Amino acid sequence: MADEPAEVRPGRAGQVTPRQPGAFSLAVDAMGGDHAPEAILDGLELAAERHPQARFLLVGDEARLGGLLATRPRAAKACSLRHAPEVISGDLKPTAALRMRGSSMRIAIDAVAGGEAAGVVSAGNTGALMALAKIVVKTLPEIDRPALAAIGPSARGDVVMLDLGANVQCDARNLVEFAVMGDAFARSVLGLTKPTIGLLNVGSEELKGDERVRQAAETLRDSAFGVNFRGFVEGHDITAGTVDVIVTDGFTGNVALKTGEGALKLMRDLLRQVFTSSVPARIGYLLARPALDRLREWMDPRRYNGAVLIGLNGVVVKSHGGTDAIGFAHAVDVAMDMVTHRFNERIREGLAQLGVAAPRPAAALKE
Amino acid sequence: MADEPAEVRPGRAGQVTPRQPGAFSLAVDAMGGDHAPEAILDGLELAAERHPQARFLLVGDEARLGGLLATRPRAAKACSLRHAPEVISGDLKPTAALRMRGSSMRIAIDAVAGGEAAGVVSAGNTGALMALAKIVVKTLPEIDRPALAAIGPSARGDVVMLDLGANVQCDARNLVEFAVMGDAFARSVLGLTKPTIGLLNVGSEELKGDERVRQAAETLRDSAFGVNFRGFVEGHDITAGTVDVIVTDGFTGNVALKTGEGALKLMRDLLRQVFTSSVPARIGYLLARPALDRLREWMDPRRYNGAVLIGLNGVVVKSHGGTDAIGFAHAVDVAMDMVTHRFNERIREGLAQLGVAAPRPAAALKE
Repeated sequence: MADEPAEVRPGRAGQVTPRQPGAFSLAVDAMGGDHAPEAILDGLELAAERHPQARFLLVGDEARLGGLLATRPRAAKACSLRHAPEVISGDLKPTAALRMRGSSMRIAIDAVAGGEAAGVVSAGNTGALMALAKIVVKTLPEIDRPALAAIGPSARGDVVMLDLGANVQCDARNLVEFAVMGDAFARSVLGLTKPTIGLLNVGSEELKGDERVRQAAETLRDSAFGVNFRGFVEGHDITAGTVDVIVTDGFTGNVALKTGEGALKLMRDLLRQVFTSSVPARIGYLLARPALDRLREWMDPRRYNGAVLIGLNGVVVKSHGGTDAIGFAHAVDVAMDMVTHRFNERIREGLAQLGVAAPRPAAALKE
Repeated sequence: MADEPAEVRPGRAGQVTPRQPGAFSLAVDAMGGDHAPEAILDGLELAAERHPQARFLLVGDEARLGGLLATRPRAAKACSLRHAPEVISGDLKPTAALRMRGSSMRIAIDAVAGGEAAGVVSAGNTGALMALAKIVVKTLPEIDRPALAAIGPSARGDVVMLDLGANVQCDARNLVEFAVMGDAFARSVLGLTKPTIGLLNVGSEELKGDERVRQAAETLRDSAFGVNFRGFVEGHDITAGTVDVIVTDGFTGNVALKTGEGALKLMRDLLRQVFTSSVPARIGYLLARPALDRLREWMDPRRYNGAVLIGLNGVVVKSHGGTDAIGFAHAVDVAMDMVTHRFNERIREGLAQLGVAAPRPAAALKE
């Protein structure tokens, strides 16, 4: 297999294939992330098997990528190369990243903005990706602000949560739009036909709720879109799986995501201590291991890799920077699901059901 | 033992002992919570053993409590009874609770406001307790708003987090005051001499932080108080134990607390499934059980029972409504620690170190 990299078509920098609209399913930033480009290409090797129709525009150091593709035949068939002379480092400020026109991330994003690719996947600098995506790919005209969404595990299956940090301050209108986008995401990526939606709030026992959240709930309840809106949920409902889509502002969402991850990590670390604390405990671990391995597999962060900046004129997926090939392939899965399942059309349908094609605060909150 | 309830001194309603300033360590709402009054009295039986000098004013249905004390000799010795003809139900609105003058919760809180008791513990309606405490016990003159604080487990020992829901909207000044109160709480209840403090924020990778949080950080950094201020922390730092005190607004804190609890519950439920999924796994569980039991004990929510409304002219501790005697005794421990370790004086010392005895926004934020 290694001797038939037939479809690798290297060419001049940034000019491999004709810039043909819709030529590629996804543009892939081959140089972003801790284990790039090897983990990225290994991930594409897996992704190419799962998505045989997919065409990837692979952006990065052409010479290096060409060599790596030679030993990855499926990726080689699915990819076209485009050279990028620069790489955005993990600590580069978004403003500096915006000025760097020759980065692999920028050229991949340019391919989406230019209509060549339906989406982009990068494991690089998050701040840079979000800034570039917003400025180059641009926000959907119907949406006020894009949001960062991801999928996580719950007792009743996968749940979608947004915003995870794109907007630290949100008003009621933003929350309503997040609900519509979260619904579209759950339909496209989780394959749910009627995802239920909850707005994150503090407990009913507290003296007062949050005004923005109350306004957003009222708008959702009063619209045709609100059929699957379940009202307020609390922090513990995220992992309980009370609803399929959890909507909140980017500050709370980011803290909740990381708090939940932290709690799970604490528990894993403590279990590791438990199972190494004595000889009987070690034997106990070996006996329970097949079941524990299934649990580990089920909770595997790689299965949940791929945070998505939604609300843009194209699909933008951020893979975790530290992920491996399996995790990167999952991020590609998310992007492919969004590309093939009419994600942005579903957002438009949801907004139409809200009764406001482009809801403005006054209209959205008073109705 | 059951035949010597010598120190029970029942009397007329609300008029058992002379209303003597400082006569009691704590007033205890005997009627609040799912298992009241039995669990409350069993908890006091444990607490009386741990705190032999403590005197409790036990407020509730006098006839019923008298009978129950007859079989709880230590509690009987430590308690004086005061009759309360009414009980605040779990679903009563705070406004209605405020109008009910004869409730056990109200009479217990009145004892704090009147100086008879240094603090109050209740497992009753949270909203009612917070409203009554604010209005009857009143906020410290130096503090703008009280906050709800609690202790939780981390990889490096117990951590304090506040606000957990008393204030859904906070400004920078509130956050600074929460830091001072959290510091005093960690000194009094965790016994730390130099607790480290962190302000909860979103990751550095996000495009922008939160303005209030940045202002609060600046104020803390620029003061003598800020020696132990460690700057921003993120959600995963809570269970990592990166700092001893986590400061945030009541909306984020409430969501983070419940998200963390939810994640731990998910993990516990999944482990239960793992250990009952096969015969080897069941045997494995039995072998690892002593170590797993230690883990369970360490994470026992009862150990962390007792959320505290701090910043008031007295100690106000809310026990979880569903807790048992062990949990209630822990809530009493927290209250006793605050009473005996000069909690409010420590708040004043912290505020003095801030360089502003009673910081006002303009002063607090510009310096």
